[in-house]
Amino acid sequence: MSLTRLRVSVVGAAGYGGGELLRLLLDHPGADVRQAVSRRFAGEPVSLVHPNLRSFRPFVFSRPEDVEQCDVLFLSLPNGESMGEMDRWMKTAAVIIDLGADFRLRRPEDWKAWYAADHKRPELLGRFVYGLPEVAREEVRTADYIAGPGCEAAASILGLYPLAKEGIVRSGPVVVDAKMGSSAAGAAPAESTHHPERAGVVRTYKPTGHRHTIEIARALENAGASLPLHLTATAIGMVRGILATIHVFPDCGPVSEKDVWRAYRAAYADEPFVRVVKQTRGLYRFPEPKILQGTNFCEIGFELEDGGRRLVVLSALDNLVKGAAGNAVQCFNLRAGFPETTGLTFPGLHPVGS
Amino acid sequence: MSLTRLRVSVVGAAGYGGGELLRLLLDHPGADVRQAVSRRFAGEPVSLVHPNLRSFRPFVFSRPEDVEQCDVLFLSLPNGESMGEMDRWMKTAAVIIDLGADFRLRRPEDWKAWYAADHKRPELLGRFVYGLPEVAREEVRTADYIAGPGCEAAASILGLYPLAKEGIVRSGPVVVDAKMGSSAAGAAPAESTHHPERAGVVRTYKPTGHRHTIEIARALENAGASLPLHLTATAIGMVRGILATIHVFPDCGPVSEKDVWRAYRAAYADEPFVRVVKQTRGLYRFPEPKILQGTNFCEIGFELEDGGRRLVVLSALDNLVKGAAGNAVQCFNLRAGFPETTGLTFPGLHPVGS
Amino acid sequence: MSLTRLRVSVVGAAGYGGGELLRLLLDHPGADVRQAVSRRFAGEPVSLVHPNLRSFRPFVFSRPEDVEQCDVLFLSLPNGESMGEMDRWMKTAAVIIDLGADFRLRRPEDWKAWYAADHKRPELLGRFVYGLPEVAREEVRTADYIAGPGCEAAASILGLYPLAKEGIVRSGPVVVDAKMGSSAAGAAPAESTHHPERAGVVRTYKPTGHRHTIEIARALENAGASLPLHLTATAIGMVRGILATIHVFPDCGPVSEKDVWRAYRAAYADEPFVRVVKQTRGLYRFPEPKILQGTNFCEIGFELEDGGRRLVVLSALDNLVKGAAGNAVQCFNLRAGFPETTGLTFPGLHPVGS
Amino acid sequence: MSLTRLRVSVVGAAGYGGGELLRLLLDHPGADVRQAVSRRFAGEPVSLVHPNLRSFRPFVFSRPEDVEQCDVLFLSLPNGESMGEMDRWMKTAAVIIDLGADFRLRRPEDWKAWYAADHKRPELLGRFVYGLPEVAREEVRTADYIAGPGCEAAASILGLYPLAKEGIVRSGPVVVDAKMGSSAAGAAPAESTHHPERAGVVRTYKPTGHRHTIEIARALENAGASLPLHLTATAIGMVRGILATIHVFPDCGPVSEKDVWRAYRAAYADEPFVRVVKQTRGLYRFPEPKILQGTNFCEIGFELEDGGRRLVVLSALDNLVKGAAGNAVQCFNLRAGFPETTGLTFPGLHPVGS
Repeated sequence: MSLTRLRVSVVGAAGYGGGELLRLLLDHPGADVRQAVSRRFAGEPVSLVHPNLRSFRPFVFSRPEDVEQCDVLFLSLPNGESMGEMDRWMKTAAVIIDLGADFRLRRPEDWKAWYAADHKRPELLGRFVYGLPEVAREEVRTADYIAGPGCEAAASILGLYPLAKEGIVRSGPVVVDAKMGSSAAGAAPAESTHHPERAGVVRTYKPTGHRHTIEIARALENAGASLPLHLTATAIGMVRGILATIHVFPDCGPVSEKDVWRAYRAAYADEPFVRVVKQTRGLYRFPEPKILQGTNFCEIGFELEDGGRRLVVLSALDNLVKGAAGNAVQCFNLRAGFPETTGLTFPGLHPVGS
Repeated sequence: MSLTRLRVSVVGAAGYGGGELLRLLLDHPGADVRQAVSRRFAGEPVSLVHPNLRSFRPFVFSRPEDVEQCDVLFLSLPNGESMGEMDRWMKTAAVIIDLGADFRLRRPEDWKAWYAADHKRPELLGRFVYGLPEVAREEVRTADYIAGPGCEAAASILGLYPLAKEGIVRSGPVVVDAKMGSSAAGAAPAESTHHPERAGVVRTYKPTGHRHTIEIARALENAGASLPLHLTATAIGMVRGILATIHVFPDCGPVSEKDVWRAYRAAYADEPFVRVVKQTRGLYRFPEPKILQGTNFCEIGFELEDGGRRLVVLSALDNLVKGAAGNAVQCFNLRAGFPETTGLTFPGLHPVGS
Repeated sequence: MSLTRLRVSVVGAAGYGGGELLRLLLDHPGADVRQAVSRRFAGEPVSLVHPNLRSFRPFVFSRPEDVEQCDVLFLSLPNGESMGEMDRWMKTAAVIIDLGADFRLRRPEDWKAWYAADHKRPELLGRFVYGLPEVAREEVRTADYIAGPGCEAAASILGLYPLAKEGIVRSGPVVVDAKMGSSAAGAAPAESTHHPERAGVVRTYKPTGHRHTIEIARALENAGASLPLHLTATAIGMVRGILATIHVFPDCGPVSEKDVWRAYRAAYADEPFVRVVKQTRGLYRFPEPKILQGTNFCEIGFELEDGGRRLVVLSALDNLVKGAAGNAVQCFNLRAGFPETTGLTFPGLHPVGS
Repeated sequence: MSLTRLRVSVVGAAGYGGGELLRLLLDHPGADVRQAVSRRFAGEPVSLVHPNLRSFRPFVFSRPEDVEQCDVLFLSLPNGESMGEMDRWMKTAAVIIDLGADFRLRRPEDWKAWYAADHKRPELLGRFVYGLPEVAREEVRTADYIAGPGCEAAASILGLYPLAKEGIVRSGPVVVDAKMGSSAAGAAPAESTHHPERAGVVRTYKPTGHRHTIEIARALENAGASLPLHLTATAIGMVRGILATIHVFPDCGPVSEKDVWRAYRAAYADEPFVRVVKQTRGLYRFPEPKILQGTNFCEIGFELEDGGRRLVVLSALDNLVKGAAGNAVQCFNLRAGFPETTGLTFPGLHPVGS
């Protein structure tokens, strides 16, 4: 495939989202990776931090001050950090794809309520598009400023959006019980991620009040659902991956398998990265994050109970790929006019641990 | 401590529940372990199967046909197997403690509905007591036939029973999202437990229709709640342990922290094996099964949301101990008139994997 | 890249090596995958067994009896099974690449000594080439019959061959202490791979007498070393990967870092899939299999002690890729005249579990 | 059992070794635990750090300055820290059991060579006894100052000492290839122990030059062996446990199974905490650390090769118990005149993860 290569740089390149951006972009025929920016590791080889990138040409981290003009700038910074320097980033590139939370919400009061701080650039919120192609493909194609979703939000929205559109989910309540890998907490060591403490946990670190709740709720409003959404997050022993188990009591009354299939087929029949998985045989009958590691796929499955009065939806993805960097590259492809799957075809491994 | 030792034997001693029974009883000052019965391993040293039992005197498995008279017989057999030979067991010992499912339900039609078979000894169902001391201590003290709860049922009931008694849970719906270790599937190899496939899974093997549902529902009826109960079971990468995340929408209207504390305190203030864990600091703020491995403790925690309109309860235990063998020994202690914690004081390890 | 596509089929396609062959070949621009052959799963969708292959076109397993003419036939069968039907395979394709052990050794008496059976086709042994490109690239380019190395053999040979060529390793003894993932035992469930037993093991299942010993010894003879080689294999908790820790006492007397570097540089400076890793900083200072999962890379590192009288070599690879299917595709590329890295550029993931 | 209870305190009680000391001593009929000392956590509940200790009476950490007179003081501090305040500790208690490295070596020059610093109290080195009962039981019985071995040293010495005594190991070389759990690195978070980086590693962090080398070498000198000892340490994915795979080339010429059995039987026939494990059947044919978690057992196994010219010894233990706190309690029992196994009878769990 021969594509006009765009100059791209990654800010926050020493983090886990940034590392995945580099992995995907360095192998992307439409991307000419110019800079990997990290304040802490400036001057160091990129492979010191991301040893898998030894596969590519030698490459050192740049200082944020030294970031150069490029076509597309990817930001992968801790929450609250991209907004502070947004002027600099906007001068650097015409297109910005931000993996962080800063510009995901439209209303400054939502930010304040969920992130416990005033938003520094409320006037810019309206210029960003929520970058989840499955629910906003056309906006992404033309947006200069794209804010990628949170990983749990991505998993939850992809499970619920089609149900909201079909009226199966309308006024709730809906419970999302998310099982999370340790990489979701980022690359900075902490007591909670010290291996002897973190290995083998089943730790409900956020029984209620998870910040992604508002993202999901706002996205579902766009599909016509206005609901109490309850998100519970439990850290488990894996490194990569999310499984969102979503407990739904259909608002429209009992539903049939056919109804649910119809909702998902309408939404996802042509989606390159969403697969509905509901097998009657085999070990992998339902979505399971371990085989999605490294891939940009989201798998959705479901089962009905109680004559269709209860619906369990399962949504699995790799938090660093479809939940972050892969999804951002998918947005990049759309914005650049490249085939949407460019650079995102890794199918995942089997067998594999986690 | 000097106790009159009772003669005890374990049938199904080569399984995981049976192995834990042996571990606990061999170290129990009131138990004189006579036979470890296993058809498959008859004649083999017990430590061939349970290498931790190398600590104790050498000991070989007996054939079921050779089981001898004893005071208390523990049965730890696959579902549906203890009922078939109940006459033999009843002749062997005056007191039977069955860890399997066969005699947990009171109504034969419940068995038929959830286990897809006719119950072979419906007339005996009424002679068994549901052996969860926290909800039936007095019955256990005098019962000759005791049926221990299923491991997910134990975790769920211990989380919900006090709420049902106080009217916080009354008509539901209630969702139990259980995270399960691999030992819950038993000691027999299968494709689903082959290490390369099972390692690192987040596999929702039972989104709906789990058999323990009926056990929990029947137990809660005794506390005055009659509700649609939804149980979803997800296998995760650990070997031992359950975390039941229980999503409750209080039926009595919004509740306060104090209300919930009151319910649990009323139920558990004097319970030797239930701890309410709800810390504001530290890594182990809520119940977490990994530190309960090998112990007979159940930890319960909770968090409120939405002005008390939603309640998340967390219940953690070791499926092989408080969820099976340890709970059975607790019942044994009650029935024998021993101090209830005899032989069950192992506090668990920290740090520890899973 | 536009390559003339060769028709390829995979026999033993439901196993782990076979699954990896399919993953690599389905994405390979020079391969037209015709059949995935499995007796046990004939008629079933390939993705039932290998859920990662859902990414590709739907595809069902064929019966061995139905295998059709193709250009290159890959065999990935249990030891001792490919030799029995070699006539059939030879009629099917002009080029055969066998991942199994049957044709790795040149001498029938070696087979007999290490595999405890007579070789069924001793007259064919001489027609196979040992398919490890780093030590036999030119033979592979022109060979019609290629036998890929065992995974521990590959790791060990890649660590030792350059040292043997330079005379650093000559008459031994050499100790290879290999740490193995569970996928090396194959896809068939067994008691030893039952998750509760296999999870978290550090199980030295083969302290001495490992069959790969003879393969390594024979390969090193070609480099001039004739030595007692001692191989100890320990299963650890991961699914994929090998780390061979190789303990060498240089035969040529004390060696310097420079000497060792020189040996490896001479051998590997231009090798596309071998990297010498020996950093003074960072977490990944030495080879480590976890970041090589899914890749065709072998990483080699070393450290000297005792004034150069002792040398520790570390060799890491993914047993299913560079230790099996990826290496086979590398041979395929060489034989077909394709660029050697075609289809093998996946760089691996970071962070990642195992 | 009714023992006169001695007043004991633990300094460094918030670390992993300290936590295990508390677990064992709080349940010990001869110990009256007075203080758990931790500078960092002074004033905090002990169970904040060690959640398993919720089983015991509430208890808070004390400041080092507030340590009170007691009978036996246990020190569990980072290397180099106990020597600096040894005067204080000696005033506090007549008997000191130090789990750290400071007083393990007899010669100040050994300390300097391996710990890269001058020893601060060289004159005290001779007053400490090396506290490994299996090699120094009588000294321990009467010693006031006891320095427990390093965990890899304990595993290695228990594997090699009987062989040295019998002349099977005399002049070496001997290679110890140790597989280590993450708890060996202590309770302080670091980049190398950040879960996403540490999970699933097979990381040879110390190919050569490990500090425990000198400890082992000095211990073996006492048994008549003077040898080049090579220690390689590899971190693997578990939390607790060590497996030392020890590669020996018998100095006395070829040995038989009987010779090796004789050496181990002579040494360990009456040892309460050492078991020689060498089965021909079952999954646990050789020592394996996972089933030893929480126990004070060390298991030793072996296999011969090459007509007895090569011997592989396997030695497994829990680094925090027989490799640290449990061994210290064993020394305490000896010194106090209690039965040696008091408080140390936990047999371990099966099945279990790691």
